[in-house]
Amino acid sequence: VSLIRCLILKAEVQTFIEKCMQSVSTSPSHARSLAEVLVEGDLRGHYSHGLNRLDVYVREIKAGICAKEGEPGIEKESVATALVNGRNLLGPVVGNFCMKLAIKKARDVGIGWVVARDSNHYGIAAYYSMQALKENMIGMSFTNTSPLVVPTRAKECTLGTNPISIAAPAKNGGSFVLDMATSAVALGKVEIHERNGSSIPEGWGCDSQGRVSTDPSKVLNGGGLVPLGGPEITGGHKGYGLGLMVEVFCGMLAGSRYSRHIRTWRDTDRVADLGQCFVAVNPENFAPGFNERMSELLHINRSLEPVGEQVPVLVPGDPERMHIEKCQLLGGIPYPLKVVRHMNEFARSIGVSPALPVNRYIQ
Amino acid sequence: VSLIRCLILKAEVQTFIEKCMQSVSTSPSHARSLAEVLVEGDLRGHYSHGLNRLDVYVREIKAGICAKEGEPGIEKESVATALVNGRNLLGPVVGNFCMKLAIKKARDVGIGWVVARDSNHYGIAAYYSMQALKENMIGMSFTNTSPLVVPTRAKECTLGTNPISIAAPAKNGGSFVLDMATSAVALGKVEIHERNGSSIPEGWGCDSQGRVSTDPSKVLNGGGLVPLGGPEITGGHKGYGLGLMVEVFCGMLAGSRYSRHIRTWRDTDRVADLGQCFVAVNPENFAPGFNERMSELLHINRSLEPVGEQVPVLVPGDPERMHIEKCQLLGGIPYPLKVVRHMNEFARSIGVSPALPVNRYIQ
Repeated sequence: VSLIRCLILKAEVQTFIEKCMQSVSTSPSHARSLAEVLVEGDLRGHYSHGLNRLDVYVREIKAGICAKEGEPGIEKESVATALVNGRNLLGPVVGNFCMKLAIKKARDVGIGWVVARDSNHYGIAAYYSMQALKENMIGMSFTNTSPLVVPTRAKECTLGTNPISIAAPAKNGGSFVLDMATSAVALGKVEIHERNGSSIPEGWGCDSQGRVSTDPSKVLNGGGLVPLGGPEITGGHKGYGLGLMVEVFCGMLAGSRYSRHIRTWRDTDRVADLGQCFVAVNPENFAPGFNERMSELLHINRSLEPVGEQVPVLVPGDPERMHIEKCQLLGGIPYPLKVVRHMNEFARSIGVSPALPVNRYIQ
Repeated sequence: VSLIRCLILKAEVQTFIEKCMQSVSTSPSHARSLAEVLVEGDLRGHYSHGLNRLDVYVREIKAGICAKEGEPGIEKESVATALVNGRNLLGPVVGNFCMKLAIKKARDVGIGWVVARDSNHYGIAAYYSMQALKENMIGMSFTNTSPLVVPTRAKECTLGTNPISIAAPAKNGGSFVLDMATSAVALGKVEIHERNGSSIPEGWGCDSQGRVSTDPSKVLNGGGLVPLGGPEITGGHKGYGLGLMVEVFCGMLAGSRYSRHIRTWRDTDRVADLGQCFVAVNPENFAPGFNERMSELLHINRSLEPVGEQVPVLVPGDPERMHIEKCQLLGGIPYPLKVVRHMNEFARSIGVSPALPVNRYIQ
């Protein structure tokens, strides 16, 4: 059963999420913003940041842990910077507000650097950085997150997976889109192995004593993820440093919660108060020919002879592009039947209908 | 012999480098700027970016590959951004000019984002990011470099070790100073193993077929360094993405050479035309209490119980701080006798005296 997938139209997922969110009195425009980010996450193949998480958002709104209406406010501002109060609104509401502001500033003075406090989970980081592409600008987005990562030499989690996203436009709609956790892998990958009863590769996580472990349950119970780079000998301290860098851009500048002061990811009985950072840089303020150079940089790497015949050399954003193309060919987004059924049950429990259709099976 | 080290006073190294550079007609202020960066590299324990490289700089000036006098110029400017023409001057001359400009803009509007083209090797990246600390600002510096890194799935080097540095001020002179290559390790580490005839750990480099190799000579001859994260299964594609990100900030915005168009690192018969990026962010434009939060963030991590009793949990910048303290205790900078003798021979060959003193031996 776990391998059976069914196809849902993009518009169907969008409407379903909106209805579920509105059923707990989320303002319609906020429900729409959230649905758009989650659908985009699924469409790009990052299912851990999509429909799959809908129940968490609904529960938080229902419990009053997250605000269902209102607008973010600017607390401090210059022509190039802003500090935004997210007013505990849904992450995408805060993120869209900030990114729009950063882009406006970059149009005026070449760069916009906007930091938000009192925000919430915002879905995939690339959703925000990519908004700059439409304006032919570089976009960046960073967020701190609940502690899951153990610093090099330590035994205890003090950092989130603190993602970095940067998007840059090439010619003819091409682009570079980096969207990465600063841990070696995301938590979801470890969870999948635990569910399947398989071991994880060395270099993903450690046990409660800080020892490298290939047992996913040890990593998930008392242990933690390790920073990008793995052990110190292969540069794990650099991944740890990058995680701290994201915290400097987010919690430090924002005055939000940070590091171990952020609630754990299973804890939804207090506000998140996340810090987030959104940047837009306008290439027009620098050397002419940016898009052409970007296209050539991408071409140089994509056209390299690969080590394995079937595994072409890619650039950041290519795997997601391939997943989007697959969805377009299929005519919708493929989901595990299990996930769809779970979501339909959830919707029924909060009185939402109609359910997602489960009649289009695919391989 | 290779283990014997001798102690040189900071001022002695500074003067020696200045004299060598001036002997090939480098303008005195440029010679001083270069000497300051190289001495700081050694003092921080990054010997691969210090005195050790002096002969390369001298040769480039002598051969006319690098300009010996003049000033960088601003080509395009807004209140928050600038594009600088480095005019092929020494890297530190370009770097100091750009960082000063970025800090000035950050004082005015909260952020300064300055990009330089036609620059040269600038020593340790942290030298520039740290300049912002004196102004109680966040500093960043990035540079592209000669191709040494093989993208994930490929066999060929198309990226440099493209370093990222970010410095952020805490309370009472404390700070966070990240300075990292986006490869798993720097080239110098592989060279040391080759010289010693020892193998390298898995996850540092690959051979000419893109296969992980523990043979340093294979990595150095036809192979290359691998991105931070190592193989794809442990996130190497993220390190590759970060290397490209640095290229976006440098070569793409600057309109300098980039990727495989940059000369190889042994090639000194044509100009480098490197791209570099310098950023300052003023915490005063964001939430009050930045320094206090920084200090607590550093404290949280430093006070973690370590896995090994003798290996405390550190934060970025601590290893360098420890090396500086060691030098202060010793009363100078310890160098391998071999390096000092080599440099003295080099100085004699270009008619510079006096030589560095070789009469203070240490363990």
